[in-house]
Amino acid sequence: MNILSYTFEEYLERVKSFHGFAAPGVIIGGFMVELAYKHLPKGGLFDAICETEKCLPDAIQLLTPCTIGNGWLRIINIGCFALTLYDKDNGKGIRVSLDPLKLDACPEIKSWFYRQKSKEEQDSQLLMEEIRQAGASILSAHQVKVDPALLNNKHKRRADSTLCPILKGVKPSADDKICLGCQGKIPYIKEMSMLEGTNY
Amino acid sequence: MNILSYTFEEYLERVKSFHGFAAPGVIIGGFMVELAYKHLPKGGLFDAICETEKCLPDAIQLLTPCTIGNGWLRIINIGCFALTLYDKDNGKGIRVSLDPLKLDACPEIKSWFYRQKSKEEQDSQLLMEEIRQAGASILSAHQVKVDPALLNNKHKRRADSTLCPILKGVKPSADDKICLGCQGKIPYIKEMSMLEGTNY
Repeated sequence: MNILSYTFEEYLERVKSFHGFAAPGVIIGGFMVELAYKHLPKGGLFDAICETEKCLPDAIQLLTPCTIGNGWLRIINIGCFALTLYDKDNGKGIRVSLDPLKLDACPEIKSWFYRQKSKEEQDSQLLMEEIRQAGASILSAHQVKVDPALLNNKHKRRADSTLCPILKGVKPSADDKICLGCQGKIPYIKEMSMLEGTNY
Repeated sequence: MNILSYTFEEYLERVKSFHGFAAPGVIIGGFMVELAYKHLPKGGLFDAICETEKCLPDAIQLLTPCTIGNGWLRIINIGCFALTLYDKDNGKGIRVSLDPLKLDACPEIKSWFYRQKSKEEQDSQLLMEEIRQAGASILSAHQVKVDPALLNNKHKRRADSTLCPILKGVKPSADDKICLGCQGKIPYIKEMSMLEGTNY
C-alpha cells in the first residue's frame, strides 16, 4: 500500500506540509500517480496533464518532477478528476482517473466525489480510512496519446521582449503594444501605490 | 540575505529539489516573497496571485501555504514577473515585481529578463551570483487592493454533480449535459484504450 517510495503515512505527512491539510483529493491523487508510473517505462521522464485544478495538481507536484512553475505540469481544466503522465516527445502516456463506477463499496468517498456533503458533514476519519483501504481499486487507467499540438508549443523561446510602457512589465506578445495587464486584465481595483519609506 | 527562514544556499537546495534545477526566476521569486511578507502584517494568512506561469509560481508554492492545488495560489497570466500576497477577506495586499529599471548594475540578470541570450549562452554562475548579490534591490513593492470579484468566486461549493454520460467524469457545470472534455476540449488524439491485464 505504498505511494512510490513513501508509506501511506509518510505521504500523508508530505501532503499536510505542502497542501496545508490532508485533502482527500491529494491523497487519492497519490495512488493515481503511483498507478500511472506502474504502467510507464521505468526511469523515463514524463510530462503531466491534470484535468482539474482542484487538489490533484499537488499530488503531481509532490510525486513527480513536474510543477506548475517548470511547465512540465499543465492544467487543462475540463473538470475531470484525472491525470496523465506522458512522454513529451511522442505524447504516449497513461491517463488515470477516479472511476465513479467503482465507488459503491466506498460510500464516504462516493459522497465526497459527488459533493453530497459539506466539509462539516463529512466523516473525515472514515473517508481517510476508505481511501487508504481502497488504494488503486477505485481508479481506471487508460493508454492515451496526447494531441501533438500540445507537445510542441511549450518550450519555444520567445522573441526578445521590450517593456510595456505603462506597467513596465514584459509584453507577452510581440503584436501587443501594451501588456495584457494594461489591456484590462490586471486584477487590482485601485491604481497601485508605491510603498513609501522603502528603497525598493 | 536570508529568504524567510532559509539561507540563500538552503533555499537554492529546496528549489533544485522541487523545481528540478536552480531556475533564476524561482531564486529571484524567493526574494520577492520575502519582500512581500516584510510589508504584510506578521502572522497573517494570505492568498497569492502570480502574474506569470513561468517559474515564479514555484517560489510561492515553496515559501507560502499557497499552492495551485489548494486554490490559495491563483495564476493570472498577464506576462508580468510579479506576485501579490493579499488578505483574502478585504483584498489588501502587497504586489512585488522585478523592476526592469533597476537592472543596469546586473547585466546578466538584464539579459536573462529580456531573453537576449539562449540558455546555452547564459553565464549561469555569474547570473546566480548577480541574483544573490542583488537580493531585493532589483524589486519594486506596491500596495494593492485585489478586485473583490476575484475574492468571492473561489471557495463556493458547487452543486451536487452528476456524471458525464460519455467520459464518466464529473460535469463541471449544472448547465452542461456532457463534460467539457466531451465538448472537444480533451487533449488526446485517439480514443482512449483501457489497459488490459489489469483489474483497475
